[in-house]
Amino acid sequence: MSVEVARLCKASMESAKVGTEEDKLQNGRDFYKFFFTNFPDLRVYFKGAEKFTADDVQKSERFEKQGQRLLLAVHILAETYANQEVFKAYVRETINRHRVYKMDPSLWLAFFTVFTMYLETKTKLDEETKKAWAEMGKVFNEEAQTHLKNSNLPHV
Amino acid sequence: MSVEVARLCKASMESAKVGTEEDKLQNGRDFYKFFFTNFPDLRVYFKGAEKFTADDVQKSERFEKQGQRLLLAVHILAETYANQEVFKAYVRETINRHRVYKMDPSLWLAFFTVFTMYLETKTKLDEETKKAWAEMGKVFNEEAQTHLKNSNLPHV
Repeated sequence: MSVEVARLCKASMESAKVGTEEDKLQNGRDFYKFFFTNFPDLRVYFKGAEKFTADDVQKSERFEKQGQRLLLAVHILAETYANQEVFKAYVRETINRHRVYKMDPSLWLAFFTVFTMYLETKTKLDEETKKAWAEMGKVFNEEAQTHLKNSNLPHV
Repeated sequence: MSVEVARLCKASMESAKVGTEEDKLQNGRDFYKFFFTNFPDLRVYFKGAEKFTADDVQKSERFEKQGQRLLLAVHILAETYANQEVFKAYVRETINRHRVYKMDPSLWLAFFTVFTMYLETKTKLDEETKKAWAEMGKVFNEEAQTHLKNSNLPHV
């Protein structure tokens, strides 16, 4: 049920709010600090930041902005999930915007595991909520791979 | 009440769905056909399409894609409006992405009048729904102008 998955994901995103205030900006920085610390090999996709430590992220205006963009994108996924046509259109748009980065297509599904791990640094997630994020990731990934294929791009 | 405004706007967006099917693609083309026919002076913001007629839009792959992007953006506004923090973050992100086009800042509010007129070509809008779109436009514009000002860009 997409409505229940949306409700659970939206509720957990209350612990990763976006905004212009310092605590909201920190939520975004914290994603990239977590990401780069735990998955250093993926820094290769961030030109100029391939060797960034958590401390470099903390001081970086680029990752302050990038953190807000990333969190906003995930909030939009959660907010639109109950309207699957809009959700899937946003998936396709997200894929289009990432074309230039030539990402390994298997990373789209992996992202949801990483993001759930990040959220767990902010709040306790119950089993239902973890399943909701896994379900959203599965639906996201299906639309992403279909769209990559239809766009004649590498897909899995 | 942002929940009621969101409900009314979302309901009216059912007549301007996004998707990969031909009728959904046509919804997007139809926005630009309406826009360029009724506000030809604003074609100046679309480099290479300054003289486009409705017929040119109809045959254009660029405006097929642009139409979907535009409709998706408005769907996202409607879907997020009940969560004002996410809505306002999306407003700021939209402003950031349009920086390169050097738009007249008064056009942000005007857009909602134009979009409501387009929607009326697709469905009958009652007075409550028109007021809901006007309210969303007002809140969008307030955040947009604040963000333009904070970004040291022209604002009204």
